[in-house]
Amino acid sequence: MQSLQQKASEWSGVSTDDAFAIDDGDLFHTLGLQTFVTLSTNFYNRVYDDDEEWFRSIFGNSDKEKAIQNQYEFLVQRMGGPPLYSQRRGHPALIARHRPFPVTHEAAERWLHHMGQALDSTSAIDDDSKMKLMNFFRHTAYFLVAGVELKDQHHHTPCKDSALKQHPCKNF
Amino acid sequence: MQSLQQKASEWSGVSTDDAFAIDDGDLFHTLGLQTFVTLSTNFYNRVYDDDEEWFRSIFGNSDKEKAIQNQYEFLVQRMGGPPLYSQRRGHPALIARHRPFPVTHEAAERWLHHMGQALDSTSAIDDDSKMKLMNFFRHTAYFLVAGVELKDQHHHTPCKDSALKQHPCKNF
Repeated sequence: MQSLQQKASEWSGVSTDDAFAIDDGDLFHTLGLQTFVTLSTNFYNRVYDDDEEWFRSIFGNSDKEKAIQNQYEFLVQRMGGPPLYSQRRGHPALIARHRPFPVTHEAAERWLHHMGQALDSTSAIDDDSKMKLMNFFRHTAYFLVAGVELKDQHHHTPCKDSALKQHPCKNF
Repeated sequence: MQSLQQKASEWSGVSTDDAFAIDDGDLFHTLGLQTFVTLSTNFYNRVYDDDEEWFRSIFGNSDKEKAIQNQYEFLVQRMGGPPLYSQRRGHPALIARHRPFPVTHEAAERWLHHMGQALDSTSAIDDDSKMKLMNFFRHTAYFLVAGVELKDQHHHTPCKDSALKQHPCKNF
């Protein structure tokens, strides 16, 4: 069976090496806290105003200010800055925390569309950092698609086939 | 509903602040790579030799050398060292990657028992680092218990009640 990161790489077209090139150098110190706050604000402004209702509605039960804070605190921590996210919420546990959301391939692409525009409209981000961040986001988006499919596979296993009856509905 | 880290703190008796005191200072540079390799080796030597068959069998399908590598690479990355884990396997995604294992309160305590002994038998670890690591492990173990219970809640929702039939079996 393919591992999570193999699926993420295949579906995103971004190798694990390229996805984690964010760790070459120190993006947090290059860009600074305010740049991440601005990026996440730009991103969620687009998401919450999306013309595509199916995508906008994914975030319908989430507070926008909280979504912005969760994202920039995670990014600051992951990019080498202070561990703001874990101090407030514990481990990122990215797949588990995305369980409430339908992270499909289509949703991943729409998410990445808005993030691409948010990166372009955040002028403090230089081209090299932008490329690293986009590769990270692209790989991570499909890592989450792979993670959610793992859950669905688990959850939707029908267990109606008599051959399966001796086994619990756990096949991951 | 209580959040993951609230449950983790309540069940472990370790506050989020104490759990992430690992980020005060720089444990990786204090201890060095070899110390984490030794710690994880000491830990899994105990686990794979555990007298308690119910606990030992949790790891029955996992290769011991791989388990050691996964753990020390994660620890090195999380404690401020190079991102060995993500370069090889992607995001830690701690809860999702523990899905195959029955992470009960009892299993968490047995895991922590062995880790306490492994820490004590790794002489390169000073008392302050040991306390920080133990708080981190204790909080994280119960974070995973909370995460697995979330999965079980999800998976076992019967969806037999007619009132639930209009909704998918998703209740987080």
